Amino acid sequence: MFEELPLAEVYRLIEPGPVVLLTTADEGRANVMAMSWHMMMEFTPPLVACLVSGSYSFAALRATGECVIAIPDVGLAPKVVAAGNCSGRTVDKFREIGLTPLPAAEVGAPLVAECFANLECRVVDDGFVKRYNLFVLEVVRAWRDPAQAAPKTIHHTGYGHFVVDGETIALPSKMP
Amino acid sequence: MFEELPLAEVYRLIEPGPVVLLTTADEGRANVMAMSWHMMMEFTPPLVACLVSGSYSFAALRATGECVIAIPDVGLAPKVVAAGNCSGRTVDKFREIGLTPLPAAEVGAPLVAECFANLECRVVDDGFVKRYNLFVLEVVRAWRDPAQAAPKTIHHTGYGHFVVDGETIALPSKMP
Repeated sequence: MFEELPLAEVYRLIEPGPVVLLTTADEGRANVMAMSWHMMMEFTPPLVACLVSGSYSFAALRATGECVIAIPDVGLAPKVVAAGNCSGRTVDKFREIGLTPLPAAEVGAPLVAECFANLECRVVDDGFVKRYNLFVLEVVRAWRDPAQAAPKTIHHTGYGHFVVDGETIALPSKMP
Repeated sequence: MFEELPLAEVYRLIEPGPVVLLTTADEGRANVMAMSWHMMMEFTPPLVACLVSGSYSFAALRATGECVIAIPDVGLAPKVVAAGNCSGRTVDKFREIGLTPLPAAEVGAPLVAECFANLECRVVDDGFVKRYNLFVLEVVRAWRDPAQAAPKTIHHTGYGHFVVDGETIALPSKMP
């Protein structure tokens, strides 16, 4: 269902600041959380910084060094909020929320079948984890669902309020 | 023209991932650049990570440890692109682009009069500057223009293409 996305295109998905899902799998147990605190750090190989605070996902990411960043369309907003409202410590969040884990190619964490893009990531620098819970990830494989041709991402503005992608504008820019 | 914004509200501006302007001032010379690679790191005091690559702004930020993050509405998109298309090394970008610098309260870098929000920042951690050009900033004062009641921010998706804020949705969330 997914087709591979060139790694050089990954920044175009993360740079606009969408809410994403972050999946992990530790000792066969998959988990998923919602995340808005992330940024691009390098075009290629794509490096992404993200802040994963003291959650069950944090422990799995620390232990395995692997995760998937899955990017949901606005249609998944209720499931994104559900992912933020419970802890994987007590429930199987994929089953509870109604999301479908799929095997990834390079990492143990699952892709999310319902998301329009999935980025397989490995932790490449944990130098800021102790101080800030900030992980530096390298995206090693990227996937896009061609059936979701014009997804609209969501941007969290606090307390469950999200701005949905609106119109697109183009201006003559020298920047990538 | 600006009213003060509580620091605890700052994350609601940065978390959605808007394109911002970053201003600096070194030896009396103000400069401004466009930036999309930033993220929240802490609610309060608000910490923001940002990546400022090898530009004139980088040198000023390194030398002074101070900057302002100014957030533009979509109406300023052509000026944002203009800020990305030239270097402060050779021109006075505020004059060239037609942006108005205003004195900040706590830092030497200027506010941008046309932007709906301005965040005065100090570098509080440069441990990732050498490796990644990543600065950790603390927002020390924040300002909002009450005349711009419902600004629409822009989100860069590459090569001068921007997604503009669309509708807002609200869902019952336990998250701040």
